[in-house]
Amino acid sequence: MKMTKELLTLNQDIAGQEIGIPVYHIDSGSNENPTVYIQSAVHAAEMQGSAVIYQLIKMLPKLKLQANFILVPNCNPFGRTQRAGEYLQGRFDATTGNNWNRFYYYHKNIAKQFISSLKIKELVAGEYSSLDLRSKFRQYLKESIVHSINSEWGVNTAQYLNYKLQLLAANADYVIDLHTGPSSTRHIYSPDFLIDDALHFNIENIISIPPSFAGALDEASFTPWIDLGNTLKEYGIEFNYRVKAFTVELGSQENICLTQAFDDMAGIVNYMRSQQLVAGGPGIVKKAITVTPLTNYKTLFSKHAGMVEYLAKAGDRVLQGQTIARVLNSLEFDSDLGLVNITAPSSGIVILHYPSAAVQVGTQLYKIAVDEN
Amino acid sequence: MKMTKELLTLNQDIAGQEIGIPVYHIDSGSNENPTVYIQSAVHAAEMQGSAVIYQLIKMLPKLKLQANFILVPNCNPFGRTQRAGEYLQGRFDATTGNNWNRFYYYHKNIAKQFISSLKIKELVAGEYSSLDLRSKFRQYLKESIVHSINSEWGVNTAQYLNYKLQLLAANADYVIDLHTGPSSTRHIYSPDFLIDDALHFNIENIISIPPSFAGALDEASFTPWIDLGNTLKEYGIEFNYRVKAFTVELGSQENICLTQAFDDMAGIVNYMRSQQLVAGGPGIVKKAITVTPLTNYKTLFSKHAGMVEYLAKAGDRVLQGQTIARVLNSLEFDSDLGLVNITAPSSGIVILHYPSAAVQVGTQLYKIAVDEN
Amino acid sequence: MKMTKELLTLNQDIAGQEIGIPVYHIDSGSNENPTVYIQSAVHAAEMQGSAVIYQLIKMLPKLKLQANFILVPNCNPFGRTQRAGEYLQGRFDATTGNNWNRFYYYHKNIAKQFISSLKIKELVAGEYSSLDLRSKFRQYLKESIVHSINSEWGVNTAQYLNYKLQLLAANADYVIDLHTGPSSTRHIYSPDFLIDDALHFNIENIISIPPSFAGALDEASFTPWIDLGNTLKEYGIEFNYRVKAFTVELGSQENICLTQAFDDMAGIVNYMRSQQLVAGGPGIVKKAITVTPLTNYKTLFSKHAGMVEYLAKAGDRVLQGQTIARVLNSLEFDSDLGLVNITAPSSGIVILHYPSAAVQVGTQLYKIAVDEN
Amino acid sequence: MKMTKELLTLNQDIAGQEIGIPVYHIDSGSNENPTVYIQSAVHAAEMQGSAVIYQLIKMLPKLKLQANFILVPNCNPFGRTQRAGEYLQGRFDATTGNNWNRFYYYHKNIAKQFISSLKIKELVAGEYSSLDLRSKFRQYLKESIVHSINSEWGVNTAQYLNYKLQLLAANADYVIDLHTGPSSTRHIYSPDFLIDDALHFNIENIISIPPSFAGALDEASFTPWIDLGNTLKEYGIEFNYRVKAFTVELGSQENICLTQAFDDMAGIVNYMRSQQLVAGGPGIVKKAITVTPLTNYKTLFSKHAGMVEYLAKAGDRVLQGQTIARVLNSLEFDSDLGLVNITAPSSGIVILHYPSAAVQVGTQLYKIAVDEN
Repeated sequence: MKMTKELLTLNQDIAGQEIGIPVYHIDSGSNENPTVYIQSAVHAAEMQGSAVIYQLIKMLPKLKLQANFILVPNCNPFGRTQRAGEYLQGRFDATTGNNWNRFYYYHKNIAKQFISSLKIKELVAGEYSSLDLRSKFRQYLKESIVHSINSEWGVNTAQYLNYKLQLLAANADYVIDLHTGPSSTRHIYSPDFLIDDALHFNIENIISIPPSFAGALDEASFTPWIDLGNTLKEYGIEFNYRVKAFTVELGSQENICLTQAFDDMAGIVNYMRSQQLVAGGPGIVKKAITVTPLTNYKTLFSKHAGMVEYLAKAGDRVLQGQTIARVLNSLEFDSDLGLVNITAPSSGIVILHYPSAAVQVGTQLYKIAVDEN
Repeated sequence: MKMTKELLTLNQDIAGQEIGIPVYHIDSGSNENPTVYIQSAVHAAEMQGSAVIYQLIKMLPKLKLQANFILVPNCNPFGRTQRAGEYLQGRFDATTGNNWNRFYYYHKNIAKQFISSLKIKELVAGEYSSLDLRSKFRQYLKESIVHSINSEWGVNTAQYLNYKLQLLAANADYVIDLHTGPSSTRHIYSPDFLIDDALHFNIENIISIPPSFAGALDEASFTPWIDLGNTLKEYGIEFNYRVKAFTVELGSQENICLTQAFDDMAGIVNYMRSQQLVAGGPGIVKKAITVTPLTNYKTLFSKHAGMVEYLAKAGDRVLQGQTIARVLNSLEFDSDLGLVNITAPSSGIVILHYPSAAVQVGTQLYKIAVDEN
Repeated sequence: MKMTKELLTLNQDIAGQEIGIPVYHIDSGSNENPTVYIQSAVHAAEMQGSAVIYQLIKMLPKLKLQANFILVPNCNPFGRTQRAGEYLQGRFDATTGNNWNRFYYYHKNIAKQFISSLKIKELVAGEYSSLDLRSKFRQYLKESIVHSINSEWGVNTAQYLNYKLQLLAANADYVIDLHTGPSSTRHIYSPDFLIDDALHFNIENIISIPPSFAGALDEASFTPWIDLGNTLKEYGIEFNYRVKAFTVELGSQENICLTQAFDDMAGIVNYMRSQQLVAGGPGIVKKAITVTPLTNYKTLFSKHAGMVEYLAKAGDRVLQGQTIARVLNSLEFDSDLGLVNITAPSSGIVILHYPSAAVQVGTQLYKIAVDEN
Repeated sequence: MKMTKELLTLNQDIAGQEIGIPVYHIDSGSNENPTVYIQSAVHAAEMQGSAVIYQLIKMLPKLKLQANFILVPNCNPFGRTQRAGEYLQGRFDATTGNNWNRFYYYHKNIAKQFISSLKIKELVAGEYSSLDLRSKFRQYLKESIVHSINSEWGVNTAQYLNYKLQLLAANADYVIDLHTGPSSTRHIYSPDFLIDDALHFNIENIISIPPSFAGALDEASFTPWIDLGNTLKEYGIEFNYRVKAFTVELGSQENICLTQAFDDMAGIVNYMRSQQLVAGGPGIVKKAITVTPLTNYKTLFSKHAGMVEYLAKAGDRVLQGQTIARVLNSLEFDSDLGLVNITAPSSGIVILHYPSAAVQVGTQLYKIAVDEN
């Protein structure tokens, strides 16, 4: 086991000073071991993952390592200096509104372009081994990203951040992107083909997403490999290698707790043990886990402006028609309209709610994992 | 001519007070005349259009009107109270980053759904007149929007604003959405099939866009009608009616000038005269106009952080390789790196540049209408 | 008992629409009864007081009223639309940084100016009754405020808001300004001469402040009357009337709870009962109360940037040298410097801490009511 | 002549990375020469001064230097990463609203405390030379600042920045703080006892301020020395040394121009020539200069919300009653109230106006140097 640290420059401020992110490399001693990439806080205020990476860095040296690790505990040097009142507005670029987590590199023809860069006769003849294809495609992906960053007209701030991070993540067989919600219970986004894997994180709620690209790192990590498998199938070649990638939501933003971070770390270690990436480490107490397809993961937008009391909290089970919140309207304190009840449109589990009592029409009040029927 | 005014409630603040937008209706006296919808300042700091609507409201009563008008001079009650330092951050929702101009209603199957709501036999038999189809589809569009707003789970803040505005705009045959750029010359986005029309606005630069939907009001206005024409063609029915819609960019944000607003108004009146919507009104001095396809309208993103002097100004013609800006780096004032030149990647016309000297890597420095070759 | 409501216009948005605040008047039926003024949410995100005023409006009609009431549940129409990410930045004007709670009207010579407006011979001869002086001075104060608002060069945004509110509050014998802290326990600012009164609010922590002016409403309410008493003493006249004013901090911002608001209301009713302003109403369970002079109410500013876990919570008693927080530094996860302990400089009661884990050097980490020695 | 550069660490971001400011030292070769301190951009968006320091660093090596220089071209590492839409909100701490230019160190008893640290008998006997007192007081000031920074409870973010800068500035005999206004003409704040000096900067408008402390660097630089002179006079000792300090406002924020920066630099060099700090350098074309006492430098606050056209520009002379702006009110476009004129309350020179057309009641519309009468 060898741990090294680099400071990767991603940003400069207007005085020209370079601002970087710490990147920890933990080497198991063998290049043939798989690589695990874990990053945290791409939305800067979502800091619990940073505490989890702290616990991982304390724990991993005590384990038997069967993988190499790249750990990036504060991956957004743009967002982490952007203050908004007492909080950190690190969700999107304050100039453009671009979400720092939606501009990873993906091109729907990338697998086809890659294959057209190979010698087709040899490919069809099976002369490329699976390992060979894997390593060549990985290289092709990284070169495509570099090419975009260096293009004549350049890339925007969010692309720049995402592409630079992706150059690290593209080396990995496992990609774990640590986030939090606003006022949120723990949950995990897993591609539908990895639900059995995802159970080992021991997180109560799994949102099952289709294996397609909508801008985030997990999707950008596994989608090209699915494309590659599909395209090779057209050539009669079976190629089953997939990058495994997850977005893990570790409770609420603007907050860290090291004790809870130890438990969060234990769940990640449990997953890695299940994949033979490590041996040893802390045990876990298995939790009951609910899996909800993305189509049933619903957002309730407010139809009222006002001051909201959230009666249903993150993690609560609610029933259709149950009053989950009530809205004060100070123009109507002398009438019955001074307090309006909000009810759940369907039964399900409250995953998160808005972190402020102050809402307007259209504010995302609740996200609920709705029961299937 | 009759002018009426309503205050349309769109927002409430958290005390429950309703906040609305003034909507001016100018009635030519005949329902059979076409309708013109003009709105301004959906990005709240883009105020020059409000001054233009002021000039229109002063001018229109003096003209012969052959159209009815709906004029909305300050259409964003959310953005116009959102301060950011001394400026107005009205480009996107400060909570979500959602651009206030990218969430208009559109559904790619809407023409098909509409047709399936008709009696197919009668349709194929040509028993629906063109006017009839036009009025029924308009009604169908508006009902679809209302249905979305009232849906059980609701819509987000930007959808709410956009849908409510679109319910007004959907009544119109002509839709003009008045914007400005950051530090910008006047230009206009016109769908490619309306370039000849667009010349009559007498604005130096036209960006020609494909007739498809990317979220904005102009696109949301004409795309469903193109879809309807295409779908009816599958039934052997020719249907050529199109809503004509444009986004007009009236110089720079955070600024109004009533004198210039008179000229801007004269260009709009000139367009309306060319369409027989009005008769009379101020003359114009014809300008040389450049039309650039959207694929040649390029953004130059900064590759440096620092303090920028913009040497090329909005409206300037630049040559490939010309120094258009230079970046000060205060860490290197004692070396040659203290001042870095930025050159134009291609020849063309500078349409706009960033409004602040303070930039980071990825900042949108310039937008240039690049020459075709 | 008669309740009336007015919408007092304080703001306009840039479209010209007037934005106001609801003001509830509850009339006991006698002008000779004292007047109680209660406002909430001058820092817009401090909303619990609005819920308390809701509970008061439900409760007061059930009590025997021996006072008249002016209740303003959302007194800041500027701040309550100012979004900052998911939160409300309503603490200061987003353009100037002016705290919405520091610009109330006060002039250190106002008592002298008032007296010089009287007939001095009659004054010295005792021909002005105490009640007469009280009513004349109240009138003089209000006219001075109006004069400032209407002055040729105008007043700034915070003065404008504060002066307009003060015109309401200046009618009152009792002024209660409802606030919250960031992550905070309940506490109350009381002028030192009213500590015995303040105990009846039944709030655990009282900060005792000197009776002088630092910009806030409580100070602006009682200081002129103290000045008047002192100045009249120079004329040999004893004048003991004082406006009684308090700032009450009801827990944490960005949050409301109606159940807790009922208890908060019961404390306020208890105070009013002790002053014979009401009879009847809910009972209270008396709490142990600590009084701390303002000089012992200390702010601990951070000496580290990083991500903080707050180990000591609002309301906790801490000992000098105790570790109350720890700071993660992600550049040093591979060394002992990755986690730095913060200790309490003195023993005392934690009144509040910063609401975000993300801090920089100079961030206000904790406010502690330090033990006297 | 020797130029050296250091990177002075002032800030850390939450990942723990240190963020600093470049400090250039230009050494004339003699410690006995006076020292000149020049800083820029303490309000981060006020960048023209950074360009001027660039020009100074290019020019000074060509001159005969009779002073040593400390040059800090981007002195605010907190503000310069704080984006607000497309602009930089670097005027105040985004969390507290504290103006980055109002928290320099000053203590009204500092001269007395210093003297009480001396041997009084020797002092009265004249055994301390003037040079000796100067150097001891400078040392005392710096130690007082260090003591505050290191105090147990710490200092706030703005104090931290200001104190650290002041530790550099306290070494200087001349202090020049480069700022800009919003939309502004060039002007200079000079203490009243230095007006004759200030004329040599060749800037059209001088605001003459009293030599007292209101938080800014110029005041914090000269006030303690005035206090020292006054206090020593009580001991019968004449002490005439004064630090000379100015705040120079170089046009408008959010903008740099290197050509104009050359002229600005020439003015500063002209001042330094007049003080025998340098010999040689570019000539100037003398301008007519108006001196206005601070009491006549008036702010016009808006009494209307709306969209403003600024008819009078920075630098214009206006007459009492002249229409200097007009306000559009989009709720009243159909009446005469749609456009409201704003007139100048007094005759004078427009120094600056607000940089946005969007204003509310209380917005600082204009600052005017009003004629004396």
